Amino acid sequence: MSSKDDPKLQARRSFLTRAAGVAAAAAGSVISPAHAHAPAVGEGVAHGRHPENDIESFWGSHQAGIATPQQRNVYFAAFDLTTSERADVIELMRSWTSAAARLTVGAPALPINPDPEAPPDDSGEAQGLAAHRLTITFGFGSGLFVKDGVDRFGLNQWRPEAFIDLPRFPGDQLVAQRTGGDLCVQACADDPQVAFHAVRQLARLGSKVAQIRWAQAGFLSIDKHQPSPRNLMGFKDGTMNVPTANAVQMSQHVWVGEEGGWMKDGSYLVARPIRIALEHWDRMKLAFQEQVVGRHKLSGAPLGKTREADPIDLDAVDGDGNPVIPENSHVRLAAPASNEGAQILRRGYSYDNGLSFIAERWPPWHQGMEFDAGLLFMCYQNDPRTGFVKIFEKLSRFDMMNQFVTPVGGGMFACPRGAAGGEYVGQHLLEHA
Amino acid sequence: MSSKDDPKLQARRSFLTRAAGVAAAAAGSVISPAHAHAPAVGEGVAHGRHPENDIESFWGSHQAGIATPQQRNVYFAAFDLTTSERADVIELMRSWTSAAARLTVGAPALPINPDPEAPPDDSGEAQGLAAHRLTITFGFGSGLFVKDGVDRFGLNQWRPEAFIDLPRFPGDQLVAQRTGGDLCVQACADDPQVAFHAVRQLARLGSKVAQIRWAQAGFLSIDKHQPSPRNLMGFKDGTMNVPTANAVQMSQHVWVGEEGGWMKDGSYLVARPIRIALEHWDRMKLAFQEQVVGRHKLSGAPLGKTREADPIDLDAVDGDGNPVIPENSHVRLAAPASNEGAQILRRGYSYDNGLSFIAERWPPWHQGMEFDAGLLFMCYQNDPRTGFVKIFEKLSRFDMMNQFVTPVGGGMFACPRGAAGGEYVGQHLLEHA
Repeated sequence: MSSKDDPKLQARRSFLTRAAGVAAAAAGSVISPAHAHAPAVGEGVAHGRHPENDIESFWGSHQAGIATPQQRNVYFAAFDLTTSERADVIELMRSWTSAAARLTVGAPALPINPDPEAPPDDSGEAQGLAAHRLTITFGFGSGLFVKDGVDRFGLNQWRPEAFIDLPRFPGDQLVAQRTGGDLCVQACADDPQVAFHAVRQLARLGSKVAQIRWAQAGFLSIDKHQPSPRNLMGFKDGTMNVPTANAVQMSQHVWVGEEGGWMKDGSYLVARPIRIALEHWDRMKLAFQEQVVGRHKLSGAPLGKTREADPIDLDAVDGDGNPVIPENSHVRLAAPASNEGAQILRRGYSYDNGLSFIAERWPPWHQGMEFDAGLLFMCYQNDPRTGFVKIFEKLSRFDMMNQFVTPVGGGMFACPRGAAGGEYVGQHLLEHA
Repeated sequence: MSSKDDPKLQARRSFLTRAAGVAAAAAGSVISPAHAHAPAVGEGVAHGRHPENDIESFWGSHQAGIATPQQRNVYFAAFDLTTSERADVIELMRSWTSAAARLTVGAPALPINPDPEAPPDDSGEAQGLAAHRLTITFGFGSGLFVKDGVDRFGLNQWRPEAFIDLPRFPGDQLVAQRTGGDLCVQACADDPQVAFHAVRQLARLGSKVAQIRWAQAGFLSIDKHQPSPRNLMGFKDGTMNVPTANAVQMSQHVWVGEEGGWMKDGSYLVARPIRIALEHWDRMKLAFQEQVVGRHKLSGAPLGKTREADPIDLDAVDGDGNPVIPENSHVRLAAPASNEGAQILRRGYSYDNGLSFIAERWPPWHQGMEFDAGLLFMCYQNDPRTGFVKIFEKLSRFDMMNQFVTPVGGGMFACPRGAAGGEYVGQHLLEHA
């Protein structure tokens, strides 16, 4: 058998050419951006497997996956650290940074070791798939600073003031197994297997010092003629969001400034799976649904307006002098004008986890298997105190939507600035003087 | 405000034009194929919302979703009937047929009732999305014939001999809440929200007589350069399947013949969620993984061959006289040559349900949260006795893969012939003389 026909050699060649774009720097544990962006060579690329427009750059002053136009799929995971050594956390973030740089260009998590007597370094289910705009965004939970009263890694002195613990909100029914985490990974891609694959490789790379705690996949459906996705309530979601292309507004609401120290150019993520009682919602009259949301269901226009992009007129009244947009409607309570200008960058996904047994708390008091589905709410902001917490304190008390939605888990994570050449994500915190 | 600017009227118009392709026949509860295929009119179509190549025809002698080229997403659901009246089942299948015909062309489940004082007839999250090749395939479980020893609907006399109860296989760990069902719906589409939306509407339409029992979403990732999808073990799956374009082989293995009575032109579906111990698998050497599967991981070629499509040579031996493809490898045990020619049409999807607590049954005896992920195995055949059951009796005993996979639920369903003009799916059984 010639080497041309040896399947093992063929396999190796293909894996190697696939990784060609980053191969030059692959020997080190951190890939520099210059290398990652070097022109790729080899048959994998010649065959068009990695068109540039399928790749979102991992490197930069901001982590990708925040301002990045939203992909179709997310796999979100939170991890608990099982080590008490800061050096282990440094090594973890170093290896995760390196792997993320490789994965986001469509390469395997590690350079392939062709030894058949070793476990494959990459589980392989994304082999042959394009990068699909994969972004991997890392965040730190409060447990990195203090857990059970202990400053485990000597980092608590650098915990930013803005990084508060999320308060308990009315209506929260947080399940421990879906809540918290010392670290988080948000993997977004235009393919669900690519997103899952990324987190799976990171979980494995970190398995000696980090245990995966909870995870949630999600999806978002956009078509050419439906640029605003609809959530599972059937309403358009994402209208009136912070415009990611507007640097001024991103600075104002999303990116942390100088005051944040090592968090400068980072952002705080609040991620909460929120179950929606779909069967209950579906029994509501159209007019009531629209009153709850404050928008027309089909067009997405604010009540009393005709187009999705029309501004919300909170002062409009009907012939009887009643507000056109109800006092306790979702859009009114969430509007910047109702929250002293507070705005957050929403970046959520719908989820479905099959069915679970539900005892309804409303007529007809049905009990049985119902859809375990809803919204993986995710939002980014430069200060949660004046962002999510400020807005949600009001929403959690007064929003008519609350009778249909239940936060069941989640947490807050500090997503540091992006990595530049030779750096790893989180270096400015973990190697603080 | 002119009617042109009235959002409610606009909404109605848009919904109506969206449904234009089927509007002519929408007044009746069953849409005839002639009407469904009539040229569509109205702005929805003019705007290109429903390109023909995005639509898989619902009508035909075979149900769509079996020979249909596999879509990227599935939402599979099983239902329990809560009625004892055959007339209720007839009315259910009539309304499901009508709704499926509408949904698969991208229309709402029911013609839109614009009354704001009524609950919307369609939950709306697929509004604005294309049909995405949606197929909806219905099946009957054994409970339609006999449940708890009772012939509930007087149909047991027409239960085909081929429709046996699935035996318990070694290794099965079937969870009641994920097993069985009197009816099933397989919704496949190139968009997850379109597939979920379809089942949600059907569940709601049937809620008075059918209770959803279990559900599982799944995905399948194919790229231009990766026509054979990889499963979560990282191996190509679907190689050596029954060629759906080959009518002779489809008749031989998949479509029920004259002997099936009302099941003629139908097919039997076995659907089983199978958990894969990914963390365990990932710790195995590459060579061992390839021995388990009987194929090379990267190329998909049978062991000893170089190309995915190369035929499996079960007689090949190495220099020591040992078989190149191990006796207890998956491909050998599943091969037609090992099963007297038995073949099934596999149509499975990967799934991930987040994490669950697992106590590993192997070194290093890890306990904790692990990926709750695997394969929603689905296969079609014209006789399960000579199809899945015959093949899996051997696989379940001897397949090396069994130490990594655990069937956790599922069932068998008789999927009758497709509906022709004026018919509903299952009519030949439910209105049997």
